[in-house]
Amino acid sequence: MNCLFCKIIAREIPAEIVFENDHVLAFLDIGPVSEGHTLVIPKVHAENLSAGSREDAQVLMAVVHDIAPKILRAVGADGYNLGMNHGEAAGQEVMHTHIHIMPRKEGHPRTFTKLRPAAHEIKETAEKIRLQ
Amino acid sequence: MNCLFCKIIAREIPAEIVFENDHVLAFLDIGPVSEGHTLVIPKVHAENLSAGSREDAQVLMAVVHDIAPKILRAVGADGYNLGMNHGEAAGQEVMHTHIHIMPRKEGHPRTFTKLRPAAHEIKETAEKIRLQ
Repeated sequence: MNCLFCKIIAREIPAEIVFENDHVLAFLDIGPVSEGHTLVIPKVHAENLSAGSREDAQVLMAVVHDIAPKILRAVGADGYNLGMNHGEAAGQEVMHTHIHIMPRKEGHPRTFTKLRPAAHEIKETAEKIRLQ
Repeated sequence: MNCLFCKIIAREIPAEIVFENDHVLAFLDIGPVSEGHTLVIPKVHAENLSAGSREDAQVLMAVVHDIAPKILRAVGADGYNLGMNHGEAAGQEVMHTHIHIMPRKEGHPRTFTKLRPAAHEIKETAEKIRLQ
């Protein structure tokens, strides 16, 4: 299947993975809107939440619950925006369910502009998260 | 407790409720960014997802999975944005965990500007959703 995220799951395309269990993978967005911007995806391909199972929806959110505090600690953030674009009408670009965790710091603008960190900066952020 | 959403759960403040089970309540946002803009909340008070249990996170997303297709059908939308503001730094205003489901139509702008529908319009939208 020609799905970018399935290829990341299969390790055919590299990504900075920060969490993995039997059902879910979490890795850093390569076009982050803030440091620590993480994508959480189900391992079983589904175009969107509705196309996937109720169980996959549940395990996704369990992982968000568990890893978000670690991401915030790692990057020194005070909160986060959670986001999901479901369908092209909502701006979904990769057609494999994914939840965005976007860390936010007090006093900083909550922009959705994509930053352009260097590969080594994303790697360093991932390492800080994995150490939590 | 002086929590707006707890008062809605306790029926001390009215709201257009579109779904309820033992753990979760869903009702229409009174300042919607699109028709059918729905808030999904846990019945047990928690300031945010991290302060609540893993189980509450799971049941919240199970309800999103189940009701989002009905909301889209009711308002004739093609997709939706899911959003959660976790902490003041992320723009959280009501300090009780809530997920936003914001229906989107193809060709319409994905604005976050609050609309000002009349009370009877919100009531009519809720009725359409409840009939699904």
